[in-house]
Amino acid sequence: MKVLVANLGSTSFKYRLFDMESEEQLARGGIDRIGEGADSTCVAEIGSNRIEASQRIADHAAAVQMCLDQLTDPESGCLKSVDEVSAIGFKAVFAGKLSGIHLVNDDLLKAMESLADVAPAHNPPYVKAMRQLQASFPEIPLVAALETAFHDTIPEPLRMYAAPYHWAEEYEVRRWGFHGASHRFIGTKMETLLGSNDAKVISCHLGGSSSVCAMRGGKSQSTSMGMTPQSGLPQNNRVGDFDPFALRLVKRLTGKSYDELLDELSSEGGLLGISGISNDLRDIEKAAEGGDKRAQLAIDIYCADIKRYIGQYLAILNGADAVVFTGGIGENSDVVRKQVCSNMTFAGIELDEQKNQTAREEGIISTEQSAVQVWIVPTNEEIVVARQTAQVVKGE
Amino acid sequence: MKVLVANLGSTSFKYRLFDMESEEQLARGGIDRIGEGADSTCVAEIGSNRIEASQRIADHAAAVQMCLDQLTDPESGCLKSVDEVSAIGFKAVFAGKLSGIHLVNDDLLKAMESLADVAPAHNPPYVKAMRQLQASFPEIPLVAALETAFHDTIPEPLRMYAAPYHWAEEYEVRRWGFHGASHRFIGTKMETLLGSNDAKVISCHLGGSSSVCAMRGGKSQSTSMGMTPQSGLPQNNRVGDFDPFALRLVKRLTGKSYDELLDELSSEGGLLGISGISNDLRDIEKAAEGGDKRAQLAIDIYCADIKRYIGQYLAILNGADAVVFTGGIGENSDVVRKQVCSNMTFAGIELDEQKNQTAREEGIISTEQSAVQVWIVPTNEEIVVARQTAQVVKGE
Repeated sequence: MKVLVANLGSTSFKYRLFDMESEEQLARGGIDRIGEGADSTCVAEIGSNRIEASQRIADHAAAVQMCLDQLTDPESGCLKSVDEVSAIGFKAVFAGKLSGIHLVNDDLLKAMESLADVAPAHNPPYVKAMRQLQASFPEIPLVAALETAFHDTIPEPLRMYAAPYHWAEEYEVRRWGFHGASHRFIGTKMETLLGSNDAKVISCHLGGSSSVCAMRGGKSQSTSMGMTPQSGLPQNNRVGDFDPFALRLVKRLTGKSYDELLDELSSEGGLLGISGISNDLRDIEKAAEGGDKRAQLAIDIYCADIKRYIGQYLAILNGADAVVFTGGIGENSDVVRKQVCSNMTFAGIELDEQKNQTAREEGIISTEQSAVQVWIVPTNEEIVVARQTAQVVKGE
Repeated sequence: MKVLVANLGSTSFKYRLFDMESEEQLARGGIDRIGEGADSTCVAEIGSNRIEASQRIADHAAAVQMCLDQLTDPESGCLKSVDEVSAIGFKAVFAGKLSGIHLVNDDLLKAMESLADVAPAHNPPYVKAMRQLQASFPEIPLVAALETAFHDTIPEPLRMYAAPYHWAEEYEVRRWGFHGASHRFIGTKMETLLGSNDAKVISCHLGGSSSVCAMRGGKSQSTSMGMTPQSGLPQNNRVGDFDPFALRLVKRLTGKSYDELLDELSSEGGLLGISGISNDLRDIEKAAEGGDKRAQLAIDIYCADIKRYIGQYLAILNGADAVVFTGGIGENSDVVRKQVCSNMTFAGIELDEQKNQTAREEGIISTEQSAVQVWIVPTNEEIVVARQTAQVVKGE
């Protein structure tokens, strides 16, 4: 069985194609500037071949068509026919009660649509693209693996807010948590790496969007994103944890509406809002090295907040066997890893500075004396979604 | 010098009178049902005498007059004349930039008034009462010791939200923190009890309103209440930490305004909102013992959130020398203390169950092996306010 996993942005489409028997990645690729009226770069890497085309791509259905054309190209492709694609899987973000893994149908799309206000950066592009693909490729099953599903194991007291009880019962207001595919991958992987099926692992998925997750035996016990992906750690341009009652003051002082202020917090906050420079930590690190104070402050707030969550999760798990860094920042920023792990000897966390600076691939970056192992583990959300998609297609 | 410290509720007035040379408490008392049109019970405890009167009390000025009448009573009083009261000190909550200790004047009252929306349960009764007292007792200096001042030592990265930077600069949106008098008292007291002026102490002030504070050398490093006293731990009827973006969903589903929802969160949330029984933990513990599930859930959420904050502060301080429980719940609920400290051996916290169950006064309740000492220390916010008030009156 072959499964295509799609990663959608509002104007982009990235994918990986897996053979599910071997879990081998057969191809990967991406198309940018979809629907922008300009030529898109359409890249496919198939085995050792790299195909690149330049063409106007009107919408996500056209993007998938382009991808399938490249994959079935008689010369450079890896598929004889589109029929070989058993399903397309999506790492979908939020459908409220419809957590879990689902064949994409109208109920799911409506649920996601109705929650667009809760996940404004994530739900709308997925719903739009999935509707287009349903119409254009009715013969290919579409499967949505919701990011929230992994966190269904969080115990009730850690999942609930202290809001009026009926807010949870009637309106499903709770800490849903996100980044489920990534944390699930890390949880499963660490069972193998630690040789234990009861390990206590704190997974730090740090990237354009970041969250920390406490896991025991590969199961989520708590995570930093709450009801919406705007909460938890500071994000690229989203605020993270914030006191809603502060909005009253800002509303009064600015004359703006609550909705305008929430929009500001979810587009002009986070690393971008503090630094005033970029929503990309690489730019911010460079500016901080050059002496920019707000850039340094953005790094300091980000690292302090990661450290806070690691502290919380040490307390929830009563210590940890491993702290794992993954995601674009987690895998690549030795600056962030060092700052987060500094002065954590009370919990037995001791980073090996040398290993931290040189490591990029999977490996341990703590000292041999460190009671808690610190790891870098590149995440693979796509294989998790592919596995879940295959399960649904097989009717498991 | 004698200082009266006033603790105001919207319909109540409690006080303590101190001699500042000896720091002896000369008297304490309270008046309830102020302005309700019914008879108030006016109690004064002076030395070993207890005076009780029943009388209609129209407003806070009348309450203070009654208090002064009782204190200067020729037979049972402890003052020869009202002139002996050098000042009245107030544990005031929030005046934004006017943090610190201030003689009550129009600037301060206006600042507190303008921030009534940020501290709706706290600022309005204080402003109203202080205005009445200014008019009725122009000869007695009034001093406000702001609850936020103690937290001015919190480092910038732990004080800032990842909101747009100008929200902090222009609108003073930051984690201000509250309960300053109580945490300051615990910090000073623990220096003596631990015989160290550089101790790492986590102070848990748990009561009708609750917060946790990380201190080093008696100075605040971080605290759980943020911009407003509605954030942090679940409070008696206020929500604590909450994802503001969840408000969009609840607004859409209920048709209520953001302001109505914020009001609900600050009056129908917290221990009351979860339990549906009471905003008083004693009632909730009783119901939980009787098998009430929502009562148990309220306790579990409350304890889990305290544990989260202790974990955060262990990470910020790199361990602790002591965890201190204070406040009505902290001093009296062995249930909460046990649940919070359970499974915290990773950090060297080990409660002595026997001591925990029997202790009520100041003392250690951890085992001898516990690397982190766990203490009960009754707080004394009034003496802190009295000291600060005396400083202002002396012009220090």
